[in-house]
Amino acid sequence: MKKQQTTNHSKLKIIPLGGLEQIGMNITAFEYEDSIIVVDCGLSFPEDDMLGIDLVIPDVTYLKNNIDKVKGFFITHGHEDHIGAIPYVLKDINVPIYATKLTIGIIENKLREHNMLTKVKRKVVKYGQHINLGCFRVEFIKTNHSIQDAAALAIYSPAGIVVHTGDFKVDYTPVYGDPIDLQRFGEIGKKGVLALMCDSTNAERPGFTSSERTVGKTFDNIFADHPSTRIIIATFASNVDRVQQIINSAYKYGRKVVVEGRSMVNIINTATELRYLQIPDNTLIDIEQLKNYPDEQTVLITTGSQGESMAALSRMASNLHKKVTIKPGDTIIFSSNPIPGNEKAVSNVINELFMKGAEVIFQDAHVSGHACQEEIKLIYSLVKPKYAIPVHGEYKHLTAQAKVAEELGINKDNIFILSSGDVLELDEDGAAVTGQVPVGDILVDGLGVGDVGNIVLRDRQHLAEDGIIIVVMTLEAGSGQVLAGPDIVSRGFVYVRGSESLMDEAKQVLDDTMEHCMEKNITDWGKIKTSIKDDLGEFVWKKTKRRPMIMPIIMEV
Amino acid sequence: MKKQQTTNHSKLKIIPLGGLEQIGMNITAFEYEDSIIVVDCGLSFPEDDMLGIDLVIPDVTYLKNNIDKVKGFFITHGHEDHIGAIPYVLKDINVPIYATKLTIGIIENKLREHNMLTKVKRKVVKYGQHINLGCFRVEFIKTNHSIQDAAALAIYSPAGIVVHTGDFKVDYTPVYGDPIDLQRFGEIGKKGVLALMCDSTNAERPGFTSSERTVGKTFDNIFADHPSTRIIIATFASNVDRVQQIINSAYKYGRKVVVEGRSMVNIINTATELRYLQIPDNTLIDIEQLKNYPDEQTVLITTGSQGESMAALSRMASNLHKKVTIKPGDTIIFSSNPIPGNEKAVSNVINELFMKGAEVIFQDAHVSGHACQEEIKLIYSLVKPKYAIPVHGEYKHLTAQAKVAEELGINKDNIFILSSGDVLELDEDGAAVTGQVPVGDILVDGLGVGDVGNIVLRDRQHLAEDGIIIVVMTLEAGSGQVLAGPDIVSRGFVYVRGSESLMDEAKQVLDDTMEHCMEKNITDWGKIKTSIKDDLGEFVWKKTKRRPMIMPIIMEV
Repeated sequence: MKKQQTTNHSKLKIIPLGGLEQIGMNITAFEYEDSIIVVDCGLSFPEDDMLGIDLVIPDVTYLKNNIDKVKGFFITHGHEDHIGAIPYVLKDINVPIYATKLTIGIIENKLREHNMLTKVKRKVVKYGQHINLGCFRVEFIKTNHSIQDAAALAIYSPAGIVVHTGDFKVDYTPVYGDPIDLQRFGEIGKKGVLALMCDSTNAERPGFTSSERTVGKTFDNIFADHPSTRIIIATFASNVDRVQQIINSAYKYGRKVVVEGRSMVNIINTATELRYLQIPDNTLIDIEQLKNYPDEQTVLITTGSQGESMAALSRMASNLHKKVTIKPGDTIIFSSNPIPGNEKAVSNVINELFMKGAEVIFQDAHVSGHACQEEIKLIYSLVKPKYAIPVHGEYKHLTAQAKVAEELGINKDNIFILSSGDVLELDEDGAAVTGQVPVGDILVDGLGVGDVGNIVLRDRQHLAEDGIIIVVMTLEAGSGQVLAGPDIVSRGFVYVRGSESLMDEAKQVLDDTMEHCMEKNITDWGKIKTSIKDDLGEFVWKKTKRRPMIMPIIMEV
Repeated sequence: MKKQQTTNHSKLKIIPLGGLEQIGMNITAFEYEDSIIVVDCGLSFPEDDMLGIDLVIPDVTYLKNNIDKVKGFFITHGHEDHIGAIPYVLKDINVPIYATKLTIGIIENKLREHNMLTKVKRKVVKYGQHINLGCFRVEFIKTNHSIQDAAALAIYSPAGIVVHTGDFKVDYTPVYGDPIDLQRFGEIGKKGVLALMCDSTNAERPGFTSSERTVGKTFDNIFADHPSTRIIIATFASNVDRVQQIINSAYKYGRKVVVEGRSMVNIINTATELRYLQIPDNTLIDIEQLKNYPDEQTVLITTGSQGESMAALSRMASNLHKKVTIKPGDTIIFSSNPIPGNEKAVSNVINELFMKGAEVIFQDAHVSGHACQEEIKLIYSLVKPKYAIPVHGEYKHLTAQAKVAEELGINKDNIFILSSGDVLELDEDGAAVTGQVPVGDILVDGLGVGDVGNIVLRDRQHLAEDGIIIVVMTLEAGSGQVLAGPDIVSRGFVYVRGSESLMDEAKQVLDDTMEHCMEKNITDWGKIKTSIKDDLGEFVWKKTKRRPMIMPIIMEV
């Protein structure tokens, strides 16, 4: 018995605590004996059926149950799906966060919004630096991504080395800073790597992702082709390199730059403070100054590239923006691709812009931040892991990477597509999923964290589909005689004016129901309510083929 | 005055009654003096914010107000966005429908479902045939599309000829029947065409749409490459040529064919009866017989290519299908592209299929049914219209066709991008939008047609977001004293177990509100309700940052 325990303890455990079922919720625990470190702490955005939900965070019960083991969080980069749950999770698990400078800067913005800046310890880490925590040593390796300061992690454990790429691409000519540190991947690979956890987002796509710099050329061309119109460019708030390139083109063509959209202003401020963004003097102007410049001397950089209804560009497109009105001739560039699920919203905004006479451009104005198949092959060939654990992507993307790994000669049995909660135990002698820990989605709605669950969502879905009919009445205590009502009120069911006869008939149904209850001496409120639900529900279905929620309320005086 | 009227009356009016704001709702009135004919009568599917709505049909008040003028409906082909509103619109406007044989067959299925088969007159028209109705003569011209028996219309009026392409592509090698009758387009063009109304769906895409036959080759290749697995192919129910090609491949490779999904079974039955589909003997088997054949001898053709949650393939993917279970090794082909807005649903189904170990193929297994730029140019060059009126597409697609028309030398002033309700008056001397007729969306929810409007939708949206809190109380008549309550019930707000203290506090707020009302002698129910909404709303917002619907109900005994 003792021996077996010892054997178990000498393996490394890798436990994704979110991610697969909820794309975006990146958070993975690495456990070795008495030490746990966590990589990333992301949120995801609600699925279509999560009505009214603002965001989704991971259930970290496993970490709370092992709170004494948890040593720290390592964050690979500053995107919401990697940092968004920090203010919620770190409330309960107060350990330090380790990340590169810009990533920490963005995390600090987030902590500030949640009044948690003084409560959470942060450590800025440089590429090449090693952090020792418990049984683990973690090294940060330079990568490229659609946000600056992205890092891969080499996680050294007594069971072996795990390389986690984070989100990455290979950019030989990045806009800012160095290309990905391929040498270091090779060097670590030479030491012998137990497992590679590699970004799968673009694993279905052959070839190589283009350099961010190619978008700069597109901007230059568009600026050259449109010397006499205003230019409006929508992109992701956090893509500081993209913003840098827009500013470069604007400067080159003598245009002033306005930044619009709260999230974009925030990140640009942080990036400028930390010197990740170089803005020539007198280039940035306030939106209020826009009117002082002719159109051909201005560029607007804005949020809303995903068609989000409250974002700046969407408000401009639908005439709801207070300071910018789209006019014929405006040149509008979507420097983005629609994230899956946003295609239609983006399309709607584009149609609105066209209707206002604007020219809309999306060709060549975006490149992905994720590695395609040839880049994935490159990393595998440098790292040469024993085990492959595809991460970051929908199931089909993970499968696509598994196929690539197999082509590269990795034994099929050594490739693991994990589900969240899976406990993968591994060392040089073998690897297997040996168990499950509790995981799940915690829904955040306003200030409420986890107070909206399946029952509330089901009710919201029901209310959304067919509305609600409320039946109220007042009974006399003791006798059970109806003193007032039953009255009917509905919302979201039918427009009542024009449906009077339906409502009158429904009232008659209820009167009959109550008469029936009285005759049969039914005084149990539960039974009365069930009769009301059944009779009224049947009547409404017959008349309308709808099933509104029916809610009887009985009062007693 | 009289003279001007005469001049007005000699112009042709073209009035789109749906279509632009609601993509899909194709219906256009052509009016000349005392005659109106209508082209197509489609429905559209609800937008995301139309909660609980099943479908959307056009408001045809204009036709009803001019009922004596309306002579008939001409239907270009059997897709829902061209025929779906027939059972609703023809209830009030009982004139004959003219269409080709398969189109009439599909319309008859629809009328049968609505018990209207005996009420609506139908006339089967052959290509080349001319129908005289009032001032109009209408000729049906052979085209190609993703459904058989599609037609373009040449509409002869005293003001000139209008050519309406319907939905079309140019297929030189169609699977069934003849290629598009380009000669006739040319011949009519030579007579002199006043206006061309041309399909814009693919107007953003350069080049030529591939022949439907290319998909057959893909099927053959996939069948050859997968000799030992079951093959499941999802496609659009109405694409009979696609089904024909699957059957051809199945027959060639010695497989039996099962058709699954109600809408597909319906259309295949109709197409087979009318001889648009040739099925070799002993090829089609019932789904119940599936178990009698080894996997490698079967093909399933199924609905669900758009990820629709109730369709056959989606139910198979999520283990809800009673007769088919997806298993590792199954080869599943998506012979379709996601329609805008369905991308994520399709992606979810694909992920589920992958998780079950199936292989999923979508490469080269679909071609569009709509003309790309070179085909649009071809039609313009044959027809050489004086005026161009791009139809069928989102605003961006109409704009793209307008650009193509301009490149072909049509004067910019002679290109009209119409909105629904626009009255375009035209003849050889000129064309202009001269007015507007009432148009709009009529929402269909269950049996209700038009009883759900903006107020009901807004309520549903509100209920969906944050749920409802109902406050009930019973007051004494005369005194206004509270006899029972105020009680609180909520649905879709928070899960009550676990939120007891919030509800207790809310109850306290209400007690305070009522006390305040009593003190101030407020007995007006409207004022009491407003106080309750204000006080409780503020409390809930402060505590939860949510705004549930608050509904006070007062009874009196």
